[in-house]
Amino acid sequence: MRQYNIPPINRELITPIREKIDHLSKSKESLGYVETLAERIALMQGSLSPHLAHPCHILFSADHGVVADGVSLAPQIITYQQTLNFARGGACASVFARLYGFDLTIVDAGVIGDLSIEPSIINRKIAEGTRNYRLEPAMTPEQMERCLSVGEEFVASFASQGCNVLSVGEMGIGNTSTSSLWMHYLTELPLGECVGVGSGLSREGVEHKLEILSAAIRRFTGTPSPEHLMQEFGGFELVMAVGAMLAAAERRMVVLIDGFVMSAVALMAARIAPNFLDYAVFGHKSKESGHIRMLAAMDATPLLDLGMHLGEGVGAMMAYPIVQGAVAMLTQMGTFSSDGIIKYFK
Amino acid sequence: MRQYNIPPINRELITPIREKIDHLSKSKESLGYVETLAERIALMQGSLSPHLAHPCHILFSADHGVVADGVSLAPQIITYQQTLNFARGGACASVFARLYGFDLTIVDAGVIGDLSIEPSIINRKIAEGTRNYRLEPAMTPEQMERCLSVGEEFVASFASQGCNVLSVGEMGIGNTSTSSLWMHYLTELPLGECVGVGSGLSREGVEHKLEILSAAIRRFTGTPSPEHLMQEFGGFELVMAVGAMLAAAERRMVVLIDGFVMSAVALMAARIAPNFLDYAVFGHKSKESGHIRMLAAMDATPLLDLGMHLGEGVGAMMAYPIVQGAVAMLTQMGTFSSDGIIKYFK
Repeated sequence: MRQYNIPPINRELITPIREKIDHLSKSKESLGYVETLAERIALMQGSLSPHLAHPCHILFSADHGVVADGVSLAPQIITYQQTLNFARGGACASVFARLYGFDLTIVDAGVIGDLSIEPSIINRKIAEGTRNYRLEPAMTPEQMERCLSVGEEFVASFASQGCNVLSVGEMGIGNTSTSSLWMHYLTELPLGECVGVGSGLSREGVEHKLEILSAAIRRFTGTPSPEHLMQEFGGFELVMAVGAMLAAAERRMVVLIDGFVMSAVALMAARIAPNFLDYAVFGHKSKESGHIRMLAAMDATPLLDLGMHLGEGVGAMMAYPIVQGAVAMLTQMGTFSSDGIIKYFK
Repeated sequence: MRQYNIPPINRELITPIREKIDHLSKSKESLGYVETLAERIALMQGSLSPHLAHPCHILFSADHGVVADGVSLAPQIITYQQTLNFARGGACASVFARLYGFDLTIVDAGVIGDLSIEPSIINRKIAEGTRNYRLEPAMTPEQMERCLSVGEEFVASFASQGCNVLSVGEMGIGNTSTSSLWMHYLTELPLGECVGVGSGLSREGVEHKLEILSAAIRRFTGTPSPEHLMQEFGGFELVMAVGAMLAAAERRMVVLIDGFVMSAVALMAARIAPNFLDYAVFGHKSKESGHIRMLAAMDATPLLDLGMHLGEGVGAMMAYPIVQGAVAMLTQMGTFSSDGIIKYFK
């Protein structure tokens, strides 16, 4: 794995940014967390006048060998079917990308089945699903490296089109399981606090999922480094997402983070390059149990709390208008002096 | 005050709406409260395929006689200055109206000073501020009736342009005081639980505000009917907002509600016509203390919780993209059968 060089933010800018915000023609701190968000975006871009350009949403899809063990309510073929659906425009991610103004890119990271019938799905298939990590590593070291590179490849392409806002989504039946394992190792919380219902398991289903994941943990006896965790537990779509997020932060992009699965990806990115979190904006608090503790482990403040748990990155896109509002506040509002208003507070 | 005839929603539609939502190609209930919101919009319009058209944001500005008693940190002239600022585009409401796609209408409901220097400010000035309600009624019954009519006039005009989404904002130094009084009478909560810092009062300032409002309560010995409360405690901008919201609900519009002040207006509208709340969408939970109890009194679920307390209706506009997302989900997503996806849950 290459070294990621994410530029540190310049904290000396905080004072002039706060001064700018406190001179805008509104009562003091009256936009609450939206002001903090504006400050953060300004720091990411190192500018008192940040701008948001050409937002891109990228969806990585792949299958997981462990699904054979019954960790998910949804059948494995949903990964294939829903990826087609992304391309055909009927999925929630497709609808929200249109609504919220994101360019949509759909990547076959390793789906079982031939997706070439939809030419807009970009083929970067690593294999037809990962191996079952209860029995063996999910992927080889080479496959892991390839995933990171593919994630980066897309971000480089978006950057060349002027994009500075990246939103990442995923489709992969079984991937809350990988997320739970990553979370368990990276936060050192007990596995039970990291496992939830995913797409709708019963209590018995969650118990079974916990058993399978416990078996995977018993099998893996290596060092739980980021590289090992990605390679051992997959999945292709998640490692591509890690690569994309890290490459985006290297380019000082705003990185919008969705719910439980994408927060596990962000956590992995943060353990690889701690500066990453300076560029992450957490869209929402998922209903998936465990998400709140994962957010806490990153000291993250989600923008929305609407009980969503859909995946596909839809909670990241839905939060984007708030980010736009924060930037518009900072760059389009007048000041007390420009607007001819008495500044009545210190 | 005329009778308001707000059409009741047809609760028999709930079953087909839920069925439609449960067939969309996503896991069950995975959009959480966004699904409830979609259901509510469908009920408001009496349609399984609701649409949102020509959203309008109307700002009513007026002054309050009670400000002479020092109930606000901000000086009274801010009402005048900020209303000009709305028209000149530098205020947060102006910026957010552009960003979130609202037609902006600015109404001088009773500001002290001549605003005709900005021709885009519509003159419906009732008087140069209300009277000081610590000493006498804020307005006459005729003025109150006139305010309700003016609110309705604008909504009728918006409707004729095809608008079915109304967002209301206000500017009026001192108007959290009126809101607290309305809340106190309409919820029967102790005044102390209804009074907060407004635009930034100190603890002593809040104590003083509480004393002045207590004196107003001692002066008023009539029946606390909606008519009396509006007339006794004002203000012009707030009663116009009541009239606008009621007229909008009569036309089955989606009515977006901002924070503390606009929630007091919504509460008043709900006491005049209880059906009103079926058409109200609460944008956010304000930082102003008392708002959470006011929301509870209406069994309202705010969409955002970002610590905002700016006024001007900005929290209503910022929540609108979520409403758009809910409607887009319901009307643009495919179904399991149309998208060729296995429906794996009941």
